[in-house]
This record gives sequence, C-alpha cells and structure tokens, in this order.
Amino acid sequence: MFSPLIDELIKSLCCLPGVGRKSAQRMALQLLERDRQGGLRLADNLHKAIERVKRCQRCRILTESDICTICSSQKRITSQLCIVETPADVMAIEQSGTYQGKYFVLLGHLSPIDGIGPDEIGLPLLAERLANETIDELILATNTTVEGEATAHYIANKAESMGIKVSRIAHGVPLGGELEYIDGGTLAHAFASRRLL
Amino acid sequence: MFSPLIDELIKSLCCLPGVGRKSAQRMALQLLERDRQGGLRLADNLHKAIERVKRCQRCRILTESDICTICSSQKRITSQLCIVETPADVMAIEQSGTYQGKYFVLLGHLSPIDGIGPDEIGLPLLAERLANETIDELILATNTTVEGEATAHYIANKAESMGIKVSRIAHGVPLGGELEYIDGGTLAHAFASRRLL
Repeated sequence: MFSPLIDELIKSLCCLPGVGRKSAQRMALQLLERDRQGGLRLADNLHKAIERVKRCQRCRILTESDICTICSSQKRITSQLCIVETPADVMAIEQSGTYQGKYFVLLGHLSPIDGIGPDEIGLPLLAERLANETIDELILATNTTVEGEATAHYIANKAESMGIKVSRIAHGVPLGGELEYIDGGTLAHAFASRRLL
Repeated sequence: MFSPLIDELIKSLCCLPGVGRKSAQRMALQLLERDRQGGLRLADNLHKAIERVKRCQRCRILTESDICTICSSQKRITSQLCIVETPADVMAIEQSGTYQGKYFVLLGHLSPIDGIGPDEIGLPLLAERLANETIDELILATNTTVEGEATAHYIANKAESMGIKVSRIAHGVPLGGELEYIDGGTLAHAFASRRLL
C-alpha cells in the first residue's frame, strides 16, 4: 500500500498460524511504531533458531544440540520411555511436570495411505534404543485418532516381543469436565475403562 | 525447556500483540517444523523494515522513502487533506478505496495531562503545509474520543483562521448495524446529526 517494505512484512507475518491479513497489519504497525527492539530481537531469534535447530539424534525432538537437554539430563529416569507424535506433545507433558522419564518423538503416525510406514516415523531408531538401553517401561502417548491407536498397537506388539512392559496413558473424562458436555466417544471409553475402587 | 534457542524464540514471539505463551509456542513449532522458508523470509523482512522504515517527511506516515508513495503520487487530489491519528487509520481508509486526497498523521491526539501538546502531534508541520500548499478542504477523521474531538476542534479553529474549509467525517449508525445493538452515545449522535431527505 503506502510502503512496499511494510507490505512485504505484513505478507510474511501471515505465514504464522492463526494470523490473517488484519492481525498481521496490527502486528507490523505495533512492532514498527512501539517495539522496534522487540521486533529486532524476534527477527534475530527466528533467524538463529531456523539456522541452528535440528532434531535430537536420540529422541528426534527439536533442539540446537546433537543430543537434547532431556536425553542428556542425569536427573531423569532412564528406564521409562514415553512415545509421542509431536514435539508439541512433549511440551504439553513437560509443562504438566508429571513425567520424569525420557521421550521418543515419532513426528507423525503410521498412515499407509499417505505412504507413512514404520521407517518414516523412526521405528528403526526406536528399536535400536529398545535393544541397547535398559528400558523397563514404554509409555504410549500417541493421539486417540485411528492412526494414533494403530501406531500405538504396532509399537506395543514390537516392544512386547522384546519383553518390554508397555502401557498406554489413560483416556476418559478430563478433570473438571462436566459429563453433560463430554462427547459420546470419550464417555463410552470412560465407561469401558472404569476401575474398581 | 528442551532447547534454549526455541525458548528464546517463544519468548520473543510474545511481543506480538494478541500472542500469549501458548500461541507463541504453536507459532515457533509451526515455523521450525513446517515452514522454515517462511520463517526466514519473516525474519529478513522484519529486520529490513525495522532498519529502514521511518516517517514520511510530509505526512508522518511510516515509509522507507523520505516521501511516501501517497504524498508523491501524481494521481491523488492535492487539494484535500485528511487528518488521522495513526497509520492504521490510513490503512483502514485506503482499504475502503473511498478517498483520493492526501493525508496527515498526527501520531496521537492532544492530551495536556500526558504532556502531549500541539508540537508533539506535529501541528507546526501541518500549519506549514496549510500555508504553502493549496489546500481547499481539511477533512478531520480523528477518533470520537474526548481527546480526538478536542484535537479536531483545535485543528478546525486553526484552519478556519487561515480561511480553509474544514469538514468532519460523519458519525452515526454503521451500515448493516442494527439499532438494537448500537450504543446510546452513537444513537444520540445519529439523531442529533440527522439530515433532511
């Protein structure tokens, strides 16, 4: 519009998820008018992260080192391994502060129709870890979609054949959730998986 | 958390308006996992814009040239000058495609209590333009806040004393607005400013 550079900036802000033309415009003007320092810091950090962030060689999480801080931590339980689909899942679990073991990130799920087989989700690397490390329990935290469940079953079979205990995180009514607003599938699962008190 | 660089990136994304920790996390992962090219382009454009964008010397809009494309355009009507508070207001008016004249951006409004007087909102520069250019009509499009109205009155007095015609954009019920949902102030204004058919 009145400045090609600002136009370009607005267009490139639209690549952020959940940001349309109007929000991008607001962001560009806010940065240029009120927070140039924050904008420069953002540009530098973005540049640095994109140049240097890669996958952890052990768990496939995003990190700038060869081995991520979780994998290299001495404080975490090495005998538990949690399988998740994405790095965002690791963030959610870490933020709950509930789990002290290690992770393995599939970066997807089995989906033969899209050509995503065991090799694409890093199962050879996982098998190698299961063989070489002393892992007592494999905790499956893939999503409850059809593909996520299939992936969980597939991994569970492989691990059990190696004599490793396998568990799946519980699914049911979330804490604070009112039954009235819970979908039928979740409710059915909650009933089927009920536990004796 | 698991990577200092990603943590820094998430923190600096939070400087964007309307972006909290959770959205910032989503944005960072999206850029790193799926759109590194878009991320690099964003970083570069942000850097370039922050380094090079300044104020137009004639209308005080944001631009990378000394004189912005609107001020230097040959196609626009030079005898009309629209006064707005912010560059975002110019964007909104330009997107409506309704106005073909030139602009002057105050970058704020008169607010003596905050130490913002005529000098801070560029009125000397405006007076100079009114004296040197042949401007027939000054269109006041400041906001309808107390400060915006006071600023409009102040500028109107100055311009009228220089013999320049001054108008104020119409305020009232927006098109498509249902009376039921319009606030009382707007309705009162719409009645007071009614026009004979």
